[in-house]
Amino acid sequence: MSFVSHGPVVPTPTALGRLRPLPASAVRLTPDGLLGGWQARNAGATLPHCVEQLGVHGNLTNLRRLTGDSSAAFAGMWFADTDVHKTLEAAFWSGAAPAFADEVSALLEKAQDPDGYLDSWYQDPENRAKQFAELHYSHEMYTAGHLIQAAVAAARSAPDTIAAQQVVAVARRFADLLVQRYAVSAEVDGHPEVETALVELYRVTGHRPYLDLAGRFVGNRGHGVLGEGRFGPAYYQDHLPLRDTTEVTGHVVRQVYLLAGAVDVAVETGDRELLEAAVRLWDSALDSRTYLTGGQGSRHRDEAYGDPYELPPDRAYAETCAAIGNFQLAWRLLLATGDVRYADEMERVLHNGIAGSTAADGTAFFYSNPLQMRTGHDGSHEDAPSQRLTWYSCACCPPNLARLMASLHAYLATGGPDGLQLHLYAAGTIADSGRAVEVTTRYPWDEDVTVTVTESPAEPWTLSLRVPAWCEDVRLTVNGTPAPARGRAQDGYLRLHRTWHPGDQVRLTLVMPPRLVTAHPRVDATRGTAALVRGPVVYCLEQADLPAGAVLEDLELDVAAPVLVAYHSSGLAPVTLQVRLRARPGGGAPLYQDLQRTTPASGSPATVTAIPYFLWANRSPGPMRVWIPLGTREA
Amino acid sequence: MSFVSHGPVVPTPTALGRLRPLPASAVRLTPDGLLGGWQARNAGATLPHCVEQLGVHGNLTNLRRLTGDSSAAFAGMWFADTDVHKTLEAAFWSGAAPAFADEVSALLEKAQDPDGYLDSWYQDPENRAKQFAELHYSHEMYTAGHLIQAAVAAARSAPDTIAAQQVVAVARRFADLLVQRYAVSAEVDGHPEVETALVELYRVTGHRPYLDLAGRFVGNRGHGVLGEGRFGPAYYQDHLPLRDTTEVTGHVVRQVYLLAGAVDVAVETGDRELLEAAVRLWDSALDSRTYLTGGQGSRHRDEAYGDPYELPPDRAYAETCAAIGNFQLAWRLLLATGDVRYADEMERVLHNGIAGSTAADGTAFFYSNPLQMRTGHDGSHEDAPSQRLTWYSCACCPPNLARLMASLHAYLATGGPDGLQLHLYAAGTIADSGRAVEVTTRYPWDEDVTVTVTESPAEPWTLSLRVPAWCEDVRLTVNGTPAPARGRAQDGYLRLHRTWHPGDQVRLTLVMPPRLVTAHPRVDATRGTAALVRGPVVYCLEQADLPAGAVLEDLELDVAAPVLVAYHSSGLAPVTLQVRLRARPGGGAPLYQDLQRTTPASGSPATVTAIPYFLWANRSPGPMRVWIPLGTREA
Repeated sequence: MSFVSHGPVVPTPTALGRLRPLPASAVRLTPDGLLGGWQARNAGATLPHCVEQLGVHGNLTNLRRLTGDSSAAFAGMWFADTDVHKTLEAAFWSGAAPAFADEVSALLEKAQDPDGYLDSWYQDPENRAKQFAELHYSHEMYTAGHLIQAAVAAARSAPDTIAAQQVVAVARRFADLLVQRYAVSAEVDGHPEVETALVELYRVTGHRPYLDLAGRFVGNRGHGVLGEGRFGPAYYQDHLPLRDTTEVTGHVVRQVYLLAGAVDVAVETGDRELLEAAVRLWDSALDSRTYLTGGQGSRHRDEAYGDPYELPPDRAYAETCAAIGNFQLAWRLLLATGDVRYADEMERVLHNGIAGSTAADGTAFFYSNPLQMRTGHDGSHEDAPSQRLTWYSCACCPPNLARLMASLHAYLATGGPDGLQLHLYAAGTIADSGRAVEVTTRYPWDEDVTVTVTESPAEPWTLSLRVPAWCEDVRLTVNGTPAPARGRAQDGYLRLHRTWHPGDQVRLTLVMPPRLVTAHPRVDATRGTAALVRGPVVYCLEQADLPAGAVLEDLELDVAAPVLVAYHSSGLAPVTLQVRLRARPGGGAPLYQDLQRTTPASGSPATVTAIPYFLWANRSPGPMRVWIPLGTREA
Repeated sequence: MSFVSHGPVVPTPTALGRLRPLPASAVRLTPDGLLGGWQARNAGATLPHCVEQLGVHGNLTNLRRLTGDSSAAFAGMWFADTDVHKTLEAAFWSGAAPAFADEVSALLEKAQDPDGYLDSWYQDPENRAKQFAELHYSHEMYTAGHLIQAAVAAARSAPDTIAAQQVVAVARRFADLLVQRYAVSAEVDGHPEVETALVELYRVTGHRPYLDLAGRFVGNRGHGVLGEGRFGPAYYQDHLPLRDTTEVTGHVVRQVYLLAGAVDVAVETGDRELLEAAVRLWDSALDSRTYLTGGQGSRHRDEAYGDPYELPPDRAYAETCAAIGNFQLAWRLLLATGDVRYADEMERVLHNGIAGSTAADGTAFFYSNPLQMRTGHDGSHEDAPSQRLTWYSCACCPPNLARLMASLHAYLATGGPDGLQLHLYAAGTIADSGRAVEVTTRYPWDEDVTVTVTESPAEPWTLSLRVPAWCEDVRLTVNGTPAPARGRAQDGYLRLHRTWHPGDQVRLTLVMPPRLVTAHPRVDATRGTAALVRGPVVYCLEQADLPAGAVLEDLELDVAAPVLVAYHSSGLAPVTLQVRLRARPGGGAPLYQDLQRTTPASGSPATVTAIPYFLWANRSPGPMRVWIPLGTREA
């Protein structure tokens, strides 16, 4: 048998958990499927683009300054090393940039201080005195965390390579330095990340002090050790101990990375109280602080959640890294609890909030992911650009996408003695412990998912298939014979327990009519509107599809017959929706007027194409919106 | 005759202008009227509070460091001097803090450098090398501008005092330094303010170089001289020359201060093109970027306007200083054009956006002025506090309020050879050029405004009375006899031309039924809602008035009978509104669901009190909203 590689998040055998991840090498995505296409594009375009940009923007030079190989000035953010580490992690998961992995691993080894310290900003002679002295700001352990995660990817993907051995050794030396320095400290880094990384390093090495340190960092947080900062302690989740917290707060990426670390600590230490706290906070985010796309973060100012039900589509921050962090958190919670809600959320955020961040060609990205762009939007600044940019002054998102997409196959399914559990549907193959299936599907464009058994032991086992929460009508055949799908399985999974034979074919049909979705009435920002959704895919209207002269803000859904049909095409999107809209003349009207003077939309309805949200801004830049005003019926 | 004082904005006799301000000493507000009450509270509470806070927060110490009278560290923002200057301006306008005026004027004189430079941050030995070297950031000329405005107030209010003579001399020396240094420079300060101040100083002194410099600064702007900065050149209004600009952009206070300076330059130099540019930009703000309260600024991140129709009530920034700047700009445009729209806007922003910033007791303030505060709002940080704060780390707003309120009487009316024009209605007296009237009214609580002539020359003259745009039904009697008010005067003013005798009495009735107002359909953030307005006063719902257990976000207007009555009371507000609301059960519902599953509000309607917006947050802190969801009629 060939080498068994593993993906992100591999709990130890004694860890809490209802589901167990499959080896990464057990799953392959077919490149002509949607997810497989994303993964192929990542290897072929995004990863090489990131490698190139690290050169252009000085991230590698920052490290070469330490080895005497460059005399350039330090470039970029003080945590610019993390872009290198995340790209390196992507290179290891994908195996698609071996020269980069070799070069950078050697560079990191050479740049590391004898005591294990490695952070090119704080190794600069001017900044050395500030090492570990400004943790609220420094991102030093955040940087260490991403280095460690690159090492974890190396150890799980290519342990026998020199590059992997180098980066693992480098990461361990840095981790050992942290263990030594923070053994009895009450301090924490302002930006969580090292917690989950240390648990993963423990999982790779079996070295318990890494886990203990992660647990200490989770526990230290919430006692005001970071000070007020610019945005107050809740920004850093340092206002209350996690165990005593009931709601997500502050900087979204920090919150979700902290929760990922907390879940990792909880399952490895059997700390159910901590796991429950993570579940509680996840619920608080999903109940009132998550966009329809799965994005989180309603405020640009401090990249923060905002208040409950504060979900403006136009000023949605919905940072790409937050969506990625949420996907990674949901996977951890799915493994820990087996609750289908987490798989539902992984599907939603992957197909919308995450997918929308990357241009069709894989080399430009959104950092924030709004659900609306207005006519007249000033997109001249990178905080809210009208189009995806090739890079950012804080370029955390592109290499984060690269590492996620490179490991995407590892998030599809779980398995164990009782069988296989399919959580995300994508064309590909899954083979584990003598069981193998091939998944053929054009999901989410088509409703059908066919699972063909290609290998099976003689003993019966259970094939579990997730039924998404959005699906009201699920149909099933086994070898062509309709099988009772009982509407929806009670826990969100259809479980087929039987003796399987090669050639057995299960056909799951997840009927996906276009739907109109509304938000909770407390979401003021989308009152009186609806969004178009089909299956897991959120749709949007974009200027490029409107009749000439139409102003997107003036269009309303013809509520009498709003949605015509899902249209299969060969253009930008395999499936578009056709909707009926009316125009409400807007120009020249006063900004405020008496209620009784308002007039309903007039004119004959026109049929307009809606495209998947994740494909917006791939044509000419222009207004876009997910939430469409509901027209008032004419009297 | 007693000393004739003048207020802010006194165009020279040759300046462009349709209306001429009255001397400040021509107008007195009666303290038991609303505006007179605000002015009295300002003199009795806000101004002493500001004086005290300047001591507490080190602003005065910063200056005393320069004179060798303090060895404390520099405290506060690098432009902390401006808080001193604005408080000093308020002291001169009001005459209510003579000891403070004496002390500070002497201190400024002593602290000033021999060359005229005065900025306590940049006079610090550590920062001297950076004087005039970082204008995008430094606020040095912004600081000079506020110093000059204090001097203008001194010269117009109390020219014979030593304090006034000191501060005028200090301001002239600084202005002379600027004239000398920037005679041929293409540079500008990152924060406009000095432009309007220099024109005012020219008006006071007749020294033409001040006007020329102001004109140069207005013209220099827009050529990218300030660089990219953190938010791009539009943030500073440095992306396009003002004359070529069609829309307001960037930081609101900077934009409105720049426009005030541009109007001042335009009227003094006869530059109609520049005046038209200012009108055009004002229109762009009013057409799509102004809150119902007159507040402007939709974004916290960069204190900026945002895109057209981007007007979220919850994240309204609507900075107090922006509202003040807008009031001051509108006054300039009113004088220049005579267009009633500017007086309408002065009334709106004064009674809502500005009035709401100050606590009922005059010693706590909002910096940003949202139109909604949610249940569960995190008000722990000063960026979006749940209650007014006594001071801010950037305390620009409180002393700005003090200087506006101290000079408020000067903005009530204009006059000239043809008569008097009343723009804002408030109890008080107006006496100019042998004409005198007494205004008695409880406006805006009552609909009646009585103007009694107390002195008149023998020749006929015209009494002009503004009819607010919101008023649909205006009635008029002269000496008890109904006079034709012809609905509304075509240009917004009722003009009564006659020979007046002492004792003549005009009674104007501005009928003000409670109204439901909606926003333009392009304002997504308030779709499906209405606001309660009566006369010029915007109302709001506040938690303190709800039945126990009610969640503000779950209440909807009973559209069948939404407004019951305006209720006169003796409590917090002289007039409250009683509205009928229904509850839509909100707890536990999913954040997103299919449209057909939504349910209308149920339960019997309850009558709830709405209070004037400007009085919110004077009881226990709690949720508040201006825009109330319109209930769907039950089938």
